[in-house]
Amino acid sequence: MKIISSVKEMQRYAEMHRMQGQRIGVVPTMGFLHDGHCELIRVAKNNSGLVITTSFVNPAQFGPAEDFNEYPRDVERDKHLAESAGSDVLFTPSREEMYPAGYLAYVEVEKITNVLEGKIRPSHFKGVATIVAKLFNVTMPQVAVFGQKDAQQAIVIKRMVSDLNFNVDIIIVPIVREPDGLAMSSRNVYLSVAERKVSPVLFQSLQLAKLLIERGERECSIVISEMTELIASKPITKIDYISIANADTLEELTALSEGNRVLISLAIRIGTIRLIDNILLTI
Amino acid sequence: MKIISSVKEMQRYAEMHRMQGQRIGVVPTMGFLHDGHCELIRVAKNNSGLVITTSFVNPAQFGPAEDFNEYPRDVERDKHLAESAGSDVLFTPSREEMYPAGYLAYVEVEKITNVLEGKIRPSHFKGVATIVAKLFNVTMPQVAVFGQKDAQQAIVIKRMVSDLNFNVDIIIVPIVREPDGLAMSSRNVYLSVAERKVSPVLFQSLQLAKLLIERGERECSIVISEMTELIASKPITKIDYISIANADTLEELTALSEGNRVLISLAIRIGTIRLIDNILLTI
Repeated sequence: MKIISSVKEMQRYAEMHRMQGQRIGVVPTMGFLHDGHCELIRVAKNNSGLVITTSFVNPAQFGPAEDFNEYPRDVERDKHLAESAGSDVLFTPSREEMYPAGYLAYVEVEKITNVLEGKIRPSHFKGVATIVAKLFNVTMPQVAVFGQKDAQQAIVIKRMVSDLNFNVDIIIVPIVREPDGLAMSSRNVYLSVAERKVSPVLFQSLQLAKLLIERGERECSIVISEMTELIASKPITKIDYISIANADTLEELTALSEGNRVLISLAIRIGTIRLIDNILLTI
Repeated sequence: MKIISSVKEMQRYAEMHRMQGQRIGVVPTMGFLHDGHCELIRVAKNNSGLVITTSFVNPAQFGPAEDFNEYPRDVERDKHLAESAGSDVLFTPSREEMYPAGYLAYVEVEKITNVLEGKIRPSHFKGVATIVAKLFNVTMPQVAVFGQKDAQQAIVIKRMVSDLNFNVDIIIVPIVREPDGLAMSSRNVYLSVAERKVSPVLFQSLQLAKLLIERGERECSIVISEMTELIASKPITKIDYISIANADTLEELTALSEGNRVLISLAIRIGTIRLIDNILLTI
């Protein structure tokens, strides 16, 4: 696997391979890869001839009070995992390479970035949209692969790609989970033993919601109150939000109707660790 | 010359020609072409194998009180002029094609868009940066050509291209002028005979500034007061601003030093018509 850290070299390499008729797939990550990322790389490999995995902890998507400096990093392990999963290139630029002195340009997606994660993490999606636009221009992909774990991110990126006319197909890969249901995340490494034990409650509450809806429940407030009750029954949990929303516009729903594509998502603090999870349903 | 109005068709056409090794040059315009635009097309032709001229009156760069609806349009004349100047393609999308219902994504360049034109026309450069990013993604150029007439726009676009890693070379073409010095502009068609007669004062004041500086003047306030006096001596003129600024950062200068790259720019209302002009100097 080739390691590239310069923007100019990455562009030359991508341009050369496109000129040769290669289909390029990109998997943007913040590194500290886990099985979820490896699944994204495998899907990219199935949908392109050349897979570029990018690894960059993007300062623009962290708030001032967030964990940019503490975000876990392990470049050697990432190299090994990306290569094993089938990546052809690992692009690992420095902060100065991506945001040189005097940096001023940002991409913003309006409205759908002001709710859910965006409400709690202002400017997070400005950072996400900006780095993804930059990485598309650097790696020149025909296809890009993201995980359903960051459901709002997937919706924001699809909107940006469509609105700004990026000629890139976006593939969203289902969440990869631990055997007990916990969604894989680089931040899971922060969980203490006690916190880890409680953490499957996110997925359990989503499964409960799915069951209630399958049995005919159509009132969102009832589904949310059942989920709330389940989560509150566990120690050291605190709910940031539970949302049942239109899966395209992220508008909150009060009642479910036949044919609705619905995103049920939640953010829970377990001890000091904040976890998110979601499911997509078609009613 | 080929006429294309669909984004998807334009992307397919550009992709196909890039795959064949063609170097694509794009000239983004708002139509109603004049000799200045023709010069941009000729420069693009000299620097690429396939020239795409785009013609789109971009609503996102007009303020609510501005002249979007009144902006002059003449598609048949544009076709003739673009073809005569050497354009291979004219891309003329509809408003709905570029900004479909539910549109939400914008590109913003901070700081340098808050001064000069951006101070008087808030959100103008958000519209400019957004449409240029979109047109780059639609026409896939290796080179893009803009006019020095919109000096701040040129600086904003160069910053956006650099920051967002667009792999596009930007060429800025000197201002094309009428014999009496008036900078060519689609909006010149609005000038009454009396207004047209006064309009060379913009260029005259810039020539006066150049002369003063060449003779050794280094105090910006003195240069600006001489320009102001000349302009005020003409009827029906009103100064929006006169600026002497760093040509990269647009920071206002108080004194000039050896080696400074300086942009002297101004916006003047003549009767009801607003005109802009500028010169670049290296001290």
